[in-house]
Amino acid sequence: MGLPVVGMVGGGQLSRMTHQAAIALGLSLRVLADKTHDSAALVANGVEIGDHTSLEDLRAFAAGCEVVTFDHEHVPGGLIEGLEADGTKVHPGSVALRHAQDKLVMRERLAGLGIPVPAFLPVATVADVVGFAHHNGWPVVLKAATGGYDGKGVWVVRDADEAAEIVASGMRLLAEALVPLRRELAAVVARSPYGQAAAWPVVETVQADGICVEVVAPAPGLSEVRALEAQGLALRLAQELDVVGVLAVELFETDDGILVNELAMRPHNSGHWTIEGSRTSQFEQHLRAVLDYPLGATTMAAPVVVMANVLGGLVDGLDERLHMLFARDPALKIHLYGKEVRPGRKIGHVTALGSDLQDVRRRAREGAAYLKDGTWLS
Amino acid sequence: MGLPVVGMVGGGQLSRMTHQAAIALGLSLRVLADKTHDSAALVANGVEIGDHTSLEDLRAFAAGCEVVTFDHEHVPGGLIEGLEADGTKVHPGSVALRHAQDKLVMRERLAGLGIPVPAFLPVATVADVVGFAHHNGWPVVLKAATGGYDGKGVWVVRDADEAAEIVASGMRLLAEALVPLRRELAAVVARSPYGQAAAWPVVETVQADGICVEVVAPAPGLSEVRALEAQGLALRLAQELDVVGVLAVELFETDDGILVNELAMRPHNSGHWTIEGSRTSQFEQHLRAVLDYPLGATTMAAPVVVMANVLGGLVDGLDERLHMLFARDPALKIHLYGKEVRPGRKIGHVTALGSDLQDVRRRAREGAAYLKDGTWLS
Repeated sequence: MGLPVVGMVGGGQLSRMTHQAAIALGLSLRVLADKTHDSAALVANGVEIGDHTSLEDLRAFAAGCEVVTFDHEHVPGGLIEGLEADGTKVHPGSVALRHAQDKLVMRERLAGLGIPVPAFLPVATVADVVGFAHHNGWPVVLKAATGGYDGKGVWVVRDADEAAEIVASGMRLLAEALVPLRRELAAVVARSPYGQAAAWPVVETVQADGICVEVVAPAPGLSEVRALEAQGLALRLAQELDVVGVLAVELFETDDGILVNELAMRPHNSGHWTIEGSRTSQFEQHLRAVLDYPLGATTMAAPVVVMANVLGGLVDGLDERLHMLFARDPALKIHLYGKEVRPGRKIGHVTALGSDLQDVRRRAREGAAYLKDGTWLS
Repeated sequence: MGLPVVGMVGGGQLSRMTHQAAIALGLSLRVLADKTHDSAALVANGVEIGDHTSLEDLRAFAAGCEVVTFDHEHVPGGLIEGLEADGTKVHPGSVALRHAQDKLVMRERLAGLGIPVPAFLPVATVADVVGFAHHNGWPVVLKAATGGYDGKGVWVVRDADEAAEIVASGMRLLAEALVPLRRELAAVVARSPYGQAAAWPVVETVQADGICVEVVAPAPGLSEVRALEAQGLALRLAQELDVVGVLAVELFETDDGILVNELAMRPHNSGHWTIEGSRTSQFEQHLRAVLDYPLGATTMAAPVVVMANVLGGLVDGLDERLHMLFARDPALKIHLYGKEVRPGRKIGHVTALGSDLQDVRRRAREGAAYLKDGTWLS
């Protein structure tokens, strides 16, 4: 058909769901996976097994693709530059992606752009941390500049002794002020090489132990002014950082306004609700963006949409729990990632749609909790 | 994860879209395809290449599956019986499927059930046809009892000479009265082995040259009484014929009521609109049914949904046309099947959703026509 070939590095659930979206567009995602039983490797036809930290493997993979994109941030920037030097089209590019790979680079760039972020400082010694606390108070948040995700690589320390344990690791660290937040929000947008951009409604993300457990679209009670501010900020960042593809901006909402927490330059957990909840899903949009197709409409398909993550609980009996849940809530949309169940592991998500916030939220929570361990919340 | 394996015989677009739905359920469809570049074979991981008219190939394929289902009606009934005799779970089963494979068997069974069908008669000679015309008038519709689809295997003959040409072929034929129809409708339902059944809203199907070109959900102006009658008829047929999976009942609407035209026991073109247009798509529902999961909600996701088939036109430039169409209508949902473009071949479909019938219909028609040959209808 003469349609282009998109390659995605990483075989996780984001690749899996991007492949689903690719099928509708007449495409078939090529996936570079670590293992044959990776989530996306189970369902895609064009799977290559290789090491995403090997330039040789990345080059071999890229050779069959018209554009290469990512389901995670773990490909070293130098290797992405290597692909770019070969003439491979990589979206997002290495320069943009650095801001999702290195929290210190991101913080410094955003501060330079005048975008509100928590007070921060690169720290290498306990004295640095104590000095930071002197101005910003204890507790202090210490973050690994690179490699963290889902709450990993983030520590809240209450004094110099606790800080010393983390500093002793030798990691590149930054200290951040602990923000007195009301809640967390996310602004998810997409941008194409042509410069077209589109924003979904701002969502509320509910975290537990540093892991997102629930996303509510649109964020309940968010004023239009603040919603537009958050969307505008994300769209501006997409442009300033030259992001191509989906950009998820995780935000803290405080009494004084919004601050940027993290960036992700790929489909993101805070956008899974768009599969059924928006006219264009984040997965389709990511493909449209990296292929430089005009972007799709981001209007909501229902007044309220709630997504809840299914975290691994009981290892056995998932099939039976699925039966029971289908029977209990025939309108709930269930997404399983084909991953082995391990306690706490994200193995899927559920999405409920409707018009009554409390009801939709209850259905999503109940569904996710039941799939986890077979008990009904209500 | 201990989830079951579903195998689908046939590598067409119905398998392709069923695979998309399987991914969400944590599954990966196994596909028995004719060729590696079949529509579903391009996107699924578990593809076997084989001959669906070979019991050996079917057996080898079935060995890895917990349930076997079909994307077409072309597997000979005797071979399906062979699989059943092996103890393979086949849905729909050979007894049900015969009514979708043999129009004469179907007509006789439906007439026996008192379900309204056009006047019909098995015919083997020109004299048989002339005799039928004597009671029912010319023209007469001649149909091949087996093997027809998309208008193939159906002839409208105006006199004995025209009938003679068809009869000379030696095919098993039936004669049918040409029904003075207002329009065509379809009632699509699904049924599980447990006996649970669910119906989508009745749709209007618009045909050109025997091929469905457009489906409007719900059927405009259809009275509630007639809609319930059509749904009830389809649900009753699903039960009487012991159908497991999706059953599409194609109907003629006349001044006097509805008559059954054809049956299909698989996801069907008249149900493609459900992908975005219903809370549960026909593809997900087919999987839920053949796996004996409780069925999903069939409520509509928008007040009006129109699907238009994309028939092959210009062979070159599809990617450019896709660009233009995305730009013109960012809310249109496009589904391409990965098939080589050949004039008149179904290569995809588009779906528009909204609340104004005329507008939604215009968008779907315009999108499908533009993808075909790059001209705007309006």
